[in-house]
Amino acid sequence: MTEKEILELILPGLNGSSSLEIPPGDDCAVMKIPMAGTEGNNRAILKVDTIVESIHFNPDDDAERVGHKALARPLSDFAAMGARPAAALVSLSLASPADGNWITGFYRGLNRLAEKFGVCVAGGETTRAMEGKSISVSIVGFCGDGGYVSRHGCQEGDALFVSGELGGSIQGHHLDFMPRIEEAAWLRENFPIHAMMDLSDGLGSDLRSMLDPLDMGADLLRSGIPVSRAARARAREGLTSKSPVEAALTDGEDYELLFAVAPSMAVKVKDAWKAAFPEVPIACIGKVSPNKGIRIQTEKGFELLRQKGFEHFATPEQNGTASGTATNTPDSDPSRQ
Amino acid sequence: MTEKEILELILPGLNGSSSLEIPPGDDCAVMKIPMAGTEGNNRAILKVDTIVESIHFNPDDDAERVGHKALARPLSDFAAMGARPAAALVSLSLASPADGNWITGFYRGLNRLAEKFGVCVAGGETTRAMEGKSISVSIVGFCGDGGYVSRHGCQEGDALFVSGELGGSIQGHHLDFMPRIEEAAWLRENFPIHAMMDLSDGLGSDLRSMLDPLDMGADLLRSGIPVSRAARARAREGLTSKSPVEAALTDGEDYELLFAVAPSMAVKVKDAWKAAFPEVPIACIGKVSPNKGIRIQTEKGFELLRQKGFEHFATPEQNGTASGTATNTPDSDPSRQ
Repeated sequence: MTEKEILELILPGLNGSSSLEIPPGDDCAVMKIPMAGTEGNNRAILKVDTIVESIHFNPDDDAERVGHKALARPLSDFAAMGARPAAALVSLSLASPADGNWITGFYRGLNRLAEKFGVCVAGGETTRAMEGKSISVSIVGFCGDGGYVSRHGCQEGDALFVSGELGGSIQGHHLDFMPRIEEAAWLRENFPIHAMMDLSDGLGSDLRSMLDPLDMGADLLRSGIPVSRAARARAREGLTSKSPVEAALTDGEDYELLFAVAPSMAVKVKDAWKAAFPEVPIACIGKVSPNKGIRIQTEKGFELLRQKGFEHFATPEQNGTASGTATNTPDSDPSRQ
Repeated sequence: MTEKEILELILPGLNGSSSLEIPPGDDCAVMKIPMAGTEGNNRAILKVDTIVESIHFNPDDDAERVGHKALARPLSDFAAMGARPAAALVSLSLASPADGNWITGFYRGLNRLAEKFGVCVAGGETTRAMEGKSISVSIVGFCGDGGYVSRHGCQEGDALFVSGELGGSIQGHHLDFMPRIEEAAWLRENFPIHAMMDLSDGLGSDLRSMLDPLDMGADLLRSGIPVSRAARARAREGLTSKSPVEAALTDGEDYELLFAVAPSMAVKVKDAWKAAFPEVPIACIGKVSPNKGIRIQTEKGFELLRQKGFEHFATPEQNGTASGTATNTPDSDPSRQ
């Protein structure tokens, strides 16, 4: 079974989850705090994430970087909602005999990131494992009415943005990335963001999970996809069979923001972002389409992004929407570097 | 390194934990919710616990029982504080290919227990592991000012109580126990409980962790220790070298409540408990002493409970307090069965 199949099996049956404001399946769950004095307006935001040795990190990866990643991943889910984290619970499973230097390094990396975002590390459990290491980090945050953005609010014609540059995360970014907590909270506080998520499975796959439930799709401009140096280097050095832009669309673990705003807001958002976060790239990559699927406009025509790469196509009914009218959508975006 | 040594290494450095109302090291952590509108009076209670295959359960243990245990353990920590759980986050790591029947059974057991205590399962993440299964469950609860009991409030002369019967948990109780959420909340709401915790490492060890930081100890009455049928059976059948009472004092995973009340309250608490929970045994096992160590009064004299069993002793200065004045303490407790 794939993780997706497992989730489809268990999510519908989780006790009480249907009463959540945002049930499991979004980046974080959101519940109204069942407590007198909060006037029904306060929410708890909840997320757990686990990383496992030899799957999410290598045995010889630096312990500080592993500690960073263990916390940064669920923080990225908080960023995905424009939410601020308050406290973290850490459960570290490791084989005996425990290596004190590794544990110290791990917590050095984790605590440094916690400090940066004001996260209180409220639990530091350790458990013995038979083999290897695994780390679960749960995060709770609090917010008022409307204090978060879900991933399910895209509207037809919305401009789609991503932060940073994509692809080739395996070269090191996956251990060192900085969750976009500040940028996302700023977006939510200053603009009517329709939908937001973080990129963990790759832009193509994540876009689908954002748009498929709405029976919508996306029209992207190939030249608008921000490709990382690492993705270019990997292609150049023959470390991957993917082209750089294909890597940017399909590699996982980017941990960048993907968000949607009304097309009339696109230029304002982009200009304000550049002023607020001059060191963090921002790119308008395309727009939300009423037609399912992800179409990519290239100089030579259109491609359809499939699970396993591209498929060239040019039938009129399929690319009709991709060549539709441009407002502030990527086709006409003059500021893309 | 032992788990205790690891915790001593990491707990002091956890970012922001010193600002918690109850920092890591108690059964749960407690933080004031940093949010407008709560008037500084509302608290979040937080706990994570992880169980690992071949350590906390066997590969051939029934999946439903494993699901039950995975949630019941951190719930028992909530019981330890007289607190009520609100939501749980579950992270299940398992090797590929995943066994759908096992996962379904696991969640059946977990959800059934969640339903019993009104716990919303707000997250059901799954992660691939290299080998075996491990499950992390984090729980958050909410309460007002004073809505919990810590383990650190024992006073000299307090009567010490335990719920249920102890020892021999390995025979099956460790997979099937029912966390004492209702009983503990009832205690907290109806009586001035000085200190409470759940028994996970064995009564002797847990008593020490409750009393050592206060430079106090306990005088127990050997005949007052409630010994489980399983502990008796294991001794009778030669499955352990421990005597039944030794098993009750040193076996782990009882998940019963240990609590302290003023001696003047002892009879009231016991009578009220028996009326409220006629099917759950309650026993006054002894009293809090100003002298460190755990002394056990037997028909033949006194024994000192060490990490690795008993040590007979009878020097006047050591057992002076154990034979001190009795009020409503176990020496004079008439209701012990």
